[in-house]
Amino acid sequence: MIKVGIAGYGNLGRGVEAALAKNKDMELVGIFTRRDPATLTPKTPGAKAYALSDMASFKDKMDVVILCGGSATDLPVMTPQIAKDFNVIDSFDTHANIPTHFKNVDEAAKAGGNTAIISVGWDPGMFSISRLYGNAILTDGKDYTFWGRGVSQGHSDAVRRIEGVKDARQYTIPVPEAVEKVRNGENPELTTREKHTREVFVVAKEGADQAKIEKEIKEMPNYFSDYDTTVHFISQEELDRDHKGLPHGGSVIRTGTTGFDSENKHVIEYSLKLDSNPEFTGSVLVAYARAAVRMNEAGQTGCKTVFDVAPAMLMDMPYEEIIAHLL
Amino acid sequence: MIKVGIAGYGNLGRGVEAALAKNKDMELVGIFTRRDPATLTPKTPGAKAYALSDMASFKDKMDVVILCGGSATDLPVMTPQIAKDFNVIDSFDTHANIPTHFKNVDEAAKAGGNTAIISVGWDPGMFSISRLYGNAILTDGKDYTFWGRGVSQGHSDAVRRIEGVKDARQYTIPVPEAVEKVRNGENPELTTREKHTREVFVVAKEGADQAKIEKEIKEMPNYFSDYDTTVHFISQEELDRDHKGLPHGGSVIRTGTTGFDSENKHVIEYSLKLDSNPEFTGSVLVAYARAAVRMNEAGQTGCKTVFDVAPAMLMDMPYEEIIAHLL
Repeated sequence: MIKVGIAGYGNLGRGVEAALAKNKDMELVGIFTRRDPATLTPKTPGAKAYALSDMASFKDKMDVVILCGGSATDLPVMTPQIAKDFNVIDSFDTHANIPTHFKNVDEAAKAGGNTAIISVGWDPGMFSISRLYGNAILTDGKDYTFWGRGVSQGHSDAVRRIEGVKDARQYTIPVPEAVEKVRNGENPELTTREKHTREVFVVAKEGADQAKIEKEIKEMPNYFSDYDTTVHFISQEELDRDHKGLPHGGSVIRTGTTGFDSENKHVIEYSLKLDSNPEFTGSVLVAYARAAVRMNEAGQTGCKTVFDVAPAMLMDMPYEEIIAHLL
Repeated sequence: MIKVGIAGYGNLGRGVEAALAKNKDMELVGIFTRRDPATLTPKTPGAKAYALSDMASFKDKMDVVILCGGSATDLPVMTPQIAKDFNVIDSFDTHANIPTHFKNVDEAAKAGGNTAIISVGWDPGMFSISRLYGNAILTDGKDYTFWGRGVSQGHSDAVRRIEGVKDARQYTIPVPEAVEKVRNGENPELTTREKHTREVFVVAKEGADQAKIEKEIKEMPNYFSDYDTTVHFISQEELDRDHKGLPHGGSVIRTGTTGFDSENKHVIEYSLKLDSNPEFTGSVLVAYARAAVRMNEAGQTGCKTVFDVAPAMLMDMPYEEIIAHLL
């Protein structure tokens, strides 16, 4: 059994916990939190919550720790710190800061003789792998990534910070015509606006100026101003009833040509349709946690990404069976 | 520069040659053939054809050889033989014999200190990897593979062997309703007949009994009897004009659930739409040839499959750039 710790118990931490229950070779040792552990009730029968500050005392009791903090402030500190004592997995997704994060984690993991795999999930993660495979095969081609239909938590949070907004949910939606053009191998040049639209469901506070809220949303730089955005005002009951889930998904498409005269076209597409973004992400993290333990046993220490992990490392199945059943 | 040899110059060999021209870090050393080398005219400027029996004299002149023979009789002999002297890649696809082939190639490659990657292409190959990733992430789920719309060369050959048939082309076609059900996460149980149909274009010899040919095709065991098959009789001119290409493709779909009560559904799909099956397969072989050379340099000798190859090994790009651009 691979003994696993979870650090952080928000949506992602709960997704990892649910995924562990579906992996027979993994065992949850404990959930580590900065909150008062007594306030957490893990769903796993018999599982306990501990203070994050007590983790070091579990040094010989866990094979790997899955870090479920946020990329903005948690992981840049947490991942290097915990990688000194444990094999770790994180889902760091602040793209511009990945090289710095990689370097910090690499030093810590090497110092401790541990293996850390960063930026695991679906994007970055499975989408990244699909981009790489597509580029390696079709060297002469073009990449497209579409996200959605799905809930963007960052955009939902941004709307919630607007004055007069009580609650909100934002969906990112790929433009169907753009996706079709790409799938048909037309190689279109697409602006931000042509690729995705945004749809926002807002619960306004009593007496709030809805027209003002709508204008503020649509003109918000970076988040909304480059997109066609639709805003709906609904009641809290409607929001809770119809928009409680965290679905997501999307497609990575690589189109390219082969032949001495580039005369043959090819389309590679990897797509996801997910009912629960955190549970799917958690499932990816758990598979890579298995790989981290195995790579560590094989002496591969330091910081790694999904690009360094041979697919066979992810499976709870003997190699002979993998070849017989999946090749 | 990675120095590459091609063994065999049929459709696949020519596909590999075209792919090499699109990879700046690879150089074609020569094409090796059992035919009279003087009868071959490689498309690559300056490239030469040599007798397959002369390959041993190129021992220090090639980093890897891409084997483009057939799985029935060529590769079971060729791959172990050549793996003694060179790093090799093959596209062995006789599923039931992969374990034996693996063992024979492993012994030969280890004896020679070489790295061999077998069963590379899209199925087996990229489809296998997709099945593995899907299974590793959604441990509680179901796999579906659909092939087509595309030309099956084995089925086309089988039709050509029927008395009275001058030429023929067979297309394998997924049943759209079945694909839709799977994509919708309905988890259907599908029979062979419910998953694919077959369409055959036949050029009959003058005076041949078309009704008899059609009956023989539709009742052919293994190849056609389990499928709904449509047969069209056309002229050689029509066949040459409309059915000259070798398009193919298909989808690997994994559907599964997460959550303590399996309450959330997910669909992962990897799909290919290929104008030229041999050129796409050749492009995959070339990317894995690069990986074979690198794995050999890293001391990883013996027989490998796509499951053993970390994605980063496939790319002609420094690791820092891979992380910056593709993660």
